[in-house]
Amino acid sequence: MKNLKLSAFHGNEIKRTTVTVGDVKVGEDFVVIAGPCSVESEEQTIKTAQIVKEAGANMLRGGAFKPRTSPYSFQGLGLKGLKILEKARMETGLPVVTEVTDPRDVSWVCEYADVLQIGTRNMQNFSLLQEVGKVDKPVLLKRGMYSTLEEWLNCAEYILAGGNPNVILCERGIRTFETYTRNTLDLSIVPSVKEVSHLPIIVDPSHGTGRLSIIEPMSLAAMAAGADGIIIEVHYNPDEAVCDKDQAMSPEMFTGLMGKLGRLESCMHELAGLKSAPGWAS
Amino acid sequence: MKNLKLSAFHGNEIKRTTVTVGDVKVGEDFVVIAGPCSVESEEQTIKTAQIVKEAGANMLRGGAFKPRTSPYSFQGLGLKGLKILEKARMETGLPVVTEVTDPRDVSWVCEYADVLQIGTRNMQNFSLLQEVGKVDKPVLLKRGMYSTLEEWLNCAEYILAGGNPNVILCERGIRTFETYTRNTLDLSIVPSVKEVSHLPIIVDPSHGTGRLSIIEPMSLAAMAAGADGIIIEVHYNPDEAVCDKDQAMSPEMFTGLMGKLGRLESCMHELAGLKSAPGWAS
Amino acid sequence: MKNLKLSAFHGNEIKRTTVTVGDVKVGEDFVVIAGPCSVESEEQTIKTAQIVKEAGANMLRGGAFKPRTSPYSFQGLGLKGLKILEKARMETGLPVVTEVTDPRDVSWVCEYADVLQIGTRNMQNFSLLQEVGKVDKPVLLKRGMYSTLEEWLNCAEYILAGGNPNVILCERGIRTFETYTRNTLDLSIVPSVKEVSHLPIIVDPSHGTGRLSIIEPMSLAAMAAGADGIIIEVHYNPDEAVCDKDQAMSPEMFTGLMGKLGRLESCMHELAGLKSAPGWAS
Amino acid sequence: MKNLKLSAFHGNEIKRTTVTVGDVKVGEDFVVIAGPCSVESEEQTIKTAQIVKEAGANMLRGGAFKPRTSPYSFQGLGLKGLKILEKARMETGLPVVTEVTDPRDVSWVCEYADVLQIGTRNMQNFSLLQEVGKVDKPVLLKRGMYSTLEEWLNCAEYILAGGNPNVILCERGIRTFETYTRNTLDLSIVPSVKEVSHLPIIVDPSHGTGRLSIIEPMSLAAMAAGADGIIIEVHYNPDEAVCDKDQAMSPEMFTGLMGKLGRLESCMHELAGLKSAPGWAS
Repeated sequence: MKNLKLSAFHGNEIKRTTVTVGDVKVGEDFVVIAGPCSVESEEQTIKTAQIVKEAGANMLRGGAFKPRTSPYSFQGLGLKGLKILEKARMETGLPVVTEVTDPRDVSWVCEYADVLQIGTRNMQNFSLLQEVGKVDKPVLLKRGMYSTLEEWLNCAEYILAGGNPNVILCERGIRTFETYTRNTLDLSIVPSVKEVSHLPIIVDPSHGTGRLSIIEPMSLAAMAAGADGIIIEVHYNPDEAVCDKDQAMSPEMFTGLMGKLGRLESCMHELAGLKSAPGWAS
Repeated sequence: MKNLKLSAFHGNEIKRTTVTVGDVKVGEDFVVIAGPCSVESEEQTIKTAQIVKEAGANMLRGGAFKPRTSPYSFQGLGLKGLKILEKARMETGLPVVTEVTDPRDVSWVCEYADVLQIGTRNMQNFSLLQEVGKVDKPVLLKRGMYSTLEEWLNCAEYILAGGNPNVILCERGIRTFETYTRNTLDLSIVPSVKEVSHLPIIVDPSHGTGRLSIIEPMSLAAMAAGADGIIIEVHYNPDEAVCDKDQAMSPEMFTGLMGKLGRLESCMHELAGLKSAPGWAS
Repeated sequence: MKNLKLSAFHGNEIKRTTVTVGDVKVGEDFVVIAGPCSVESEEQTIKTAQIVKEAGANMLRGGAFKPRTSPYSFQGLGLKGLKILEKARMETGLPVVTEVTDPRDVSWVCEYADVLQIGTRNMQNFSLLQEVGKVDKPVLLKRGMYSTLEEWLNCAEYILAGGNPNVILCERGIRTFETYTRNTLDLSIVPSVKEVSHLPIIVDPSHGTGRLSIIEPMSLAAMAAGADGIIIEVHYNPDEAVCDKDQAMSPEMFTGLMGKLGRLESCMHELAGLKSAPGWAS
Repeated sequence: MKNLKLSAFHGNEIKRTTVTVGDVKVGEDFVVIAGPCSVESEEQTIKTAQIVKEAGANMLRGGAFKPRTSPYSFQGLGLKGLKILEKARMETGLPVVTEVTDPRDVSWVCEYADVLQIGTRNMQNFSLLQEVGKVDKPVLLKRGMYSTLEEWLNCAEYILAGGNPNVILCERGIRTFETYTRNTLDLSIVPSVKEVSHLPIIVDPSHGTGRLSIIEPMSLAAMAAGADGIIIEVHYNPDEAVCDKDQAMSPEMFTGLMGKLGRLESCMHELAGLKSAPGWAS
């Protein structure tokens, strides 16, 4: 009998996948992943981790390998950054989500990461996908900024076909002609994914909009659209951030957002209990 | 002293515009405009109007002039359609939103319409914008499928500069490479509009997605993103719809959606009362 | 028997349409339409007309009605501008191509124009298309900046179905994410149009690129791709141009371009005589 | 003194880079790279190599590692394919261009390839770029289907900064809303690259259009726009091609195209000798 779970292309007809990371069940609970864009120092990472933990985040994000447009930009702290993340996990208990960009790094990055992130520029880096398909860590697969739903799920398929069923999809904005926002956050992809795939999907409103002032409403909208979580850039002191400082939330903003998400989540649970019309995808 | 209300380009620094249509205050209350894509017959329009009224809609939508891609497609009933809409208003009390496509029609369509709609293909039809800028009916200005925020507000500016301050913006999806949805609904534009303009903005998830199954989650997401309302295609019997039948909600679906929106609205009012961080755009 | 010429949707299977304007046969000869973006004054228009005539242009372009993004920008001289164009035609013998933006203007603009231009923002202004479908002047139909080939031909169909068979298509760049050029000139549409339609197609590299420095190579490329002509912005003194000054060619540039086009045209005639492989669309 | 050649971001102010591959000088002569999409068998590859050699091609293309949307599609012959390409080079003398997709493969693929190709999906695979920056083989860097000019040149910068100055850029079509062609070939990028960079640029009309019938006119247009060459898919028997069969040229088509390119090249040389207006970028 074919194992449907090893293909990304099945929607409501099979049980939805739940990806377990520590105590968190992605696909069941609404998950909030928060932390700095890049790991810059031990102080910055641990302080930020403590803040997001206290505010109620479920996992810590932070990049040790940063794919940057220019070769002259800060490229991340590498191994040193991973060790800082490890320390932050020990301090806070938060599982760590961090990006891997090179197939040669996958095995040893696994020793530090709880979830491996594949970034938007590497969505179709098939060598990398095959490598993360072989390990036993969950994978957060960001949508390519130019990618259709079908292409994206095919990238998940590379990972599942390799034997790793634990893929979390992440919408992070697509590239369009609009310039007011850095990308165009495509929230329609959330219910679309749920129609055609059993994989959980979260949303990245920080990169998806690139505008600090609209991250909160788009986070609420992501939850209302049915997303399984969000991933948010937070910095204990955004003015000091080395990269993407204009989209990093301050501790106050993030705490405010978490409060609102909590109340909205109760409302969404209530809505889920309402009877829908027959045949309605909910 | 300059009248700021006569420029679309002012955000949080001035009082937001409220557009009054009968008992409805667009910009204060969350407004639901519902009805058939096109007016096809008296029976279809009045039955649908009664259904959406009963479910709690605030206004009736319905096209008498249909801009169609092909000259050989059904172009709408014209004056006959407007008379049917007038009858539907008498039967239900719902104000009527209907599209006008030709500057020569503006003055007499005003005798039947409560709100004049400018469609996405006519967003930059400046002759038409100038004409609706001269009348005393509110205008629902849809975003061009290729339009930036700045271009869109400049089109509103044509109407305001003509002396008509009652413009309601409507996001209806932009054109991208993604084909799973008919357009890409850009919900980020909602908080973006609120940053730079005082005009109310509603969302059209029916045209914005073109997929019946994801209209409900995108309607909820629109409300969560801060939209002032939605416009939805409903048909008392979708199987008989002449145009866009695949995106018309059935009475059951629409009633279910209205129930969920009602509960979400209470939640959103509660969230609005929560203290945001200083400097936070909410 | 169905008149194939009254549908835009026929490619190589029928005789290609030739649109005759004065001595020019668009679809047979490579046609160059040149002149200022907008008619600003009698001196500017007539001087520019004389320059482009001398350099070998076949028609004069110039806008009397300018659809501008902002209502506060220069909107064109209107009737006064048309009278200047009429004078320029008398002075130079060049037929006049000018834009019409309002269905109410079509009949009287016909008294001044030899070719009516429908701009990119009005491509799907169906009332306007229907109106120009009723007159006996050729129509230059620009592609909408968001328009697929199929939608564009359907707009031509509105004109042909109205009884006017003389439609010239004009590619003017589509909207993409690239910002180095103002639009992305889609030259692939030229051979694509020739596959599926019998209508002639010209190219506008001035608006299509918005960068003066690349108009010449893109003009040559348009000819090599099989275009039936180009439309170019020229100003006798670009520094004084009221609109789009950064993309207006100087007389020297335009004269240089005409020399190169002339030699390339001989080469293209020679290539057309070469035997292609069987089944090859040439 | 700074070595300008080690930055991609310099245009007309410095001597343009010429990349030497065997007898071919990319950037001086117009270069034609031709061959099958993927290496399928020795017979297919060698027959096709002989045909393109005879027709006048300067290099052989052929993929041994194929990045495919789905993990279940043919992924290429790998090392076996590279050995076939080596044999084809021995038979014909044509240098071999072949894609590398994994940083771990770069060093040993160099033993078989004369030019390393970086595909559109790996344009921002920075690990891979860094690796090809360390070797002494020229690199053909395809533009990402979502990439701006600036991002693309930054990817070239990764290679140059690594110490490898021999980068050939390749436009292969960007992703837009148009569906008639598989991608939208952006020929404007050719003169744009020449304005801001000293690197040579070629064009891929096979992938750029995905329609066999318009590859010839777009190849001619690429030359007229100033491209330094083209890369074309040819199969000795297209009906048998395993991948992209609908865009592979037959031997007859390719031979016809080469004849036309030869005559057009003479014309372009003649045009280059014509005096341009002062300040004109040619």
